[in-house]
This record gives sequence, C-alpha cells and structure tokens, in this order.
Amino acid sequence: MNRDMQAYLEATESRILAHLGENHVSDTIRVASSYSIKAGGKRFRPYLLFATLEALGEDPMKGADAAAAIEMIHTYSLIHDDLPAMDDDDYRRGKPTNHKVFGEAAAILAGDTLLTESFSIVSSDESLSADKRISIISRIASKAGFNGMIGGQMLDMEAEGKEISFSQLEHIHQYKTGQLIVLPVECACIIADAPPETSGRLIAFAEKLGILFQIRDDILDVEGDMAVTGKEAGSDERKNKMTYVSTYGLEGAHRELAALTDEAAGLLDHLSENINTEELHNVLQMFAVRDQ
Amino acid sequence: MNRDMQAYLEATESRILAHLGENHVSDTIRVASSYSIKAGGKRFRPYLLFATLEALGEDPMKGADAAAAIEMIHTYSLIHDDLPAMDDDDYRRGKPTNHKVFGEAAAILAGDTLLTESFSIVSSDESLSADKRISIISRIASKAGFNGMIGGQMLDMEAEGKEISFSQLEHIHQYKTGQLIVLPVECACIIADAPPETSGRLIAFAEKLGILFQIRDDILDVEGDMAVTGKEAGSDERKNKMTYVSTYGLEGAHRELAALTDEAAGLLDHLSENINTEELHNVLQMFAVRDQ
Repeated sequence: MNRDMQAYLEATESRILAHLGENHVSDTIRVASSYSIKAGGKRFRPYLLFATLEALGEDPMKGADAAAAIEMIHTYSLIHDDLPAMDDDDYRRGKPTNHKVFGEAAAILAGDTLLTESFSIVSSDESLSADKRISIISRIASKAGFNGMIGGQMLDMEAEGKEISFSQLEHIHQYKTGQLIVLPVECACIIADAPPETSGRLIAFAEKLGILFQIRDDILDVEGDMAVTGKEAGSDERKNKMTYVSTYGLEGAHRELAALTDEAAGLLDHLSENINTEELHNVLQMFAVRDQ
Repeated sequence: MNRDMQAYLEATESRILAHLGENHVSDTIRVASSYSIKAGGKRFRPYLLFATLEALGEDPMKGADAAAAIEMIHTYSLIHDDLPAMDDDDYRRGKPTNHKVFGEAAAILAGDTLLTESFSIVSSDESLSADKRISIISRIASKAGFNGMIGGQMLDMEAEGKEISFSQLEHIHQYKTGQLIVLPVECACIIADAPPETSGRLIAFAEKLGILFQIRDDILDVEGDMAVTGKEAGSDERKNKMTYVSTYGLEGAHRELAALTDEAAGLLDHLSENINTEELHNVLQMFAVRDQ
C-alpha cells in the first residue's frame, strides 16, 4: 500500500468519526457507533475503492464519502451479526463486540445509526453531481439490501448446523460478503465515468476478490491466532459451519486461494494499458499472503 | 379521508409489497419484512404526505415513493423497538410482533431490510429529478438517524424506570416520534417546491401533530382495548414509563390534546388562501377524536 492510500484510509476514518460526532441527541449512540469504527479492521473496502479510482486516473479523494459510507455499512453489519440472536460473538477485531460493551439495545441502535447515516454522508457529498450521488446510493442500497448482504446473512443463519452443498455455500458467500466487495469497485466506476468494458472487467476482478476474501477468512479461522485476526480461532468449527476449509481441507483451501489469486491477477493484466493497476495488485496481495 | 387518499394509501402498500417481492435471495426475509407491512397500521405518515401535496396543489402520486420509503422506515423502527432487547413487546397492531413469528435474527434482518430498501425506492423514483431525490434522501436519513428517531429511541430506552422531568419527556418524544412526523411534510414541500414561508408553517403544523400523536398514544395505552390499538393496554404503566397521562392524569392529557388540536387547526387556518387544507384538517381530526 502506498503512502497516499494510507492517508486516504485515515481520511476515511476521520470523515466517519467527524460525522458521528455531529450527533447531539444521544451520547450513548455516538460513543457506541464510534467504538466499532475505531476498533479498526483492514478498511479493505475503502482501500479497494481508492485503488480502483487511482487505476482509473481519478482523484481518489473524490471517493472519500462513498468509501466512508461503505465502511459504515460494513461495520453496522458486523455489529448486528455479532448479536446474541445472530452469530453470538464476544470478540471482534480483538476487542469485545459492541453489545458486550454497550448492551444489546445500544448495539442494535448503533448498527441502525451507521446504516442510516451512511446514506446521509453520500447524499451530502458535494464533490459529486446529484446524478452520481443517486447512482451510488442506489448501488449501496442494492448491494447491502435483500438481494445482497442482508439476503446472504439470512441464508447463512438458516444454513447453520445443516448439511448444505458446496454450491449452496458459494451462493451464500456471493451475497453475504461478495456483494459488499463488488460495491466499492462499482462506486469507483460511477465516480470516474469508467467505460462499460472497463467496469465489467473491474467488477469481474472484484467478484474473484470476494471469493478470495471468504477462503482467506475460513483459513484464518482455523490457522489464525487472536492477535492477528481479533477473533477466537476455531469459531466456525464450534458452530458446525460449513466452510472452504471443511470442504477442501486446509491444504486444499490454500491451493484454491493460490489459483484464484493467479486468476484475479490475470484479470488485472488484461485491462487496458491506460490503467495503472499497481495498487489493485497490492490489494490482491493482501489476500494472497499466507501468514497475514 | 377522501376516496383519493384511500387509493393513495393502498397504492403505497402495493408499492412496498411489490418492491419486497423483488427479493430473490431469501424467502424468509421477503415474508418477514412483508408481514410487518401487511400488519397494517394507520399509514398516518403517508397520509400526511399525500394530504400536504394535495394542499400544495401537487399531484399526490408524485409522493408515492417517498411515502412508501417513510412507511418502511416507520415499520423497521417498530420491528426493532419490539425486540426483547428493546421494548420486548409481543403484540403490535393486534398481531404477534415480528420476532415472535420469525425469530429474533430474522426480525433484526427484516428491519435492516426495510431501512436499506427505503433508500432504494427513493433513489429509483423516476417521477422526481435527481436533485429532489437527493434532498428527500438527505431528509429521510436526517430525521431517521442519530439526530432524529434513533437518537430518541436511545434516550427513551435509557429513561425507562428513571425519574425524568417533563421537559426531558418532551425532548425524547420530539426525537423518537416527532421527527418522523415532520418528515412527510418536509418531503411534500420538496416535491411541490413549496415557498419557504409555506414550508415553515406546514412544518410547524407537523411539529404540533407530533406532540398530539404522542399524547393520543399515551391516552390509548390506558384507555384503549387491544381490538382498537392492537397493543396490550397498560404496557407503559407496567414498564414504569413516564407518559403524558402519568404526568397530567387522564383528564389533563385529554385537555392538553384538545388545546393542541385547536392550536394546530389555527396554524392551518393561517396558511395562504391558495392552499386547500381540507385533507390536512382531516389528518388532524384523526387525532382529536376521543374514541378512535
């Protein structure tokens, strides 16, 4: 990751926290929603958005509000997914989950806040035309909604403890995690007015990245220690969840990860020569490295 | 309510259910989110939006998508507020609450769906310019977010079982319920390009309506039977909640309701002569009638 990218990611966090600081009604909501943003995470989706804008020759900072919104949506989904009625997780990113600190009511409302306020941020993004803002809002709602992340999370909940086929597993992940990884690339293409062919190839790359992301997550759930992942190791197995590791074995999952990494890199190499894919290759390497 | 208004409200419900029917990922999400929409309710916010548009001489159907979005936001808030971790209610509108039927996980996700998809509906509203859609999305996010409904719900949760002053009670209601009653009027003013003075007066009317709404709700919690209110009577008292009735007594609350109704009617009478406030008076009467 180059230094500019690091600065964009810091700007994204500052943008979100500044917006949450505009909350003047409830201290609890401000503190609880900020807690999960400050808890860190890889900022992978904002990074992907900024890297795509850089590849397209557009000023990455034009995507700052969209990146903030997507990170807020991602964070809200983690808060709600961690609730006792959902995945019932006590730790996230090495820290107690939102409801463990603030209680379930505040956690539900902090999640609702991040979701609602993400649309506030994009709607007031004065660096973009109203038409582009509408396109971005439409994509966010679509990818985060019932035909995207929420639909996938429901399928995942319903599959727990059941025998499902591998294609059902892939179907779940395509929605649960895949759509929100395609989203930053779509937003970048809207912001930069990317031609349809370029958008199509970048989205295909993002779709591969979505699968990589899940394989890596499943591997880390087995291999990772809490210092690296921030989660308790082995939680998938304890919950009897079907994963890439339970299907392919650990070595098989690593082989699949390596093969997909090559395919994704190949997609980047077939983009037009005008496109500087250096940072997109860096994004990809975040997933290819075994011990990360 | 005139027949046209009835038709607009039916169109609103159809619009929402048609959109929820576009869900092709999770049957559970589609059924659970539609359940709470179909459970009925007064459709008070859409009615207020349509009545305001009619008063402003604009085609009320231009507000159909905004009305659908606001009703979805309202419904999501009820689903989340009814959860065991929040108000823990078993009945709503005479039917078992969402989580009693579908379980907590599905109820959380059905709420998240209605919230997310409300923005999808407004962003794709082709009867309005991109600028107006952005203004409406901005107002919805603002009134439903941390400085609106969510902030108020958090304050309400935190006040439960505590001694609070009457001005604190009013402060809570201003956010928890008031903002989402001002919202349809704001949206109608945006759609109809209402001049600032007119908007200001209509918003002042809506603010009174928000207080009326809460007083009436508190009265019905004591007087109403489940056949009318769809909720179990006396739930506020059981939860040791401070209400208008616990503060003023039942007769006092009725007196307050009558006085505010007169004030709100007076605000309508001071609008310009070009404005036909007949339906807005009808909206107001929904709250003034004792036995409703």
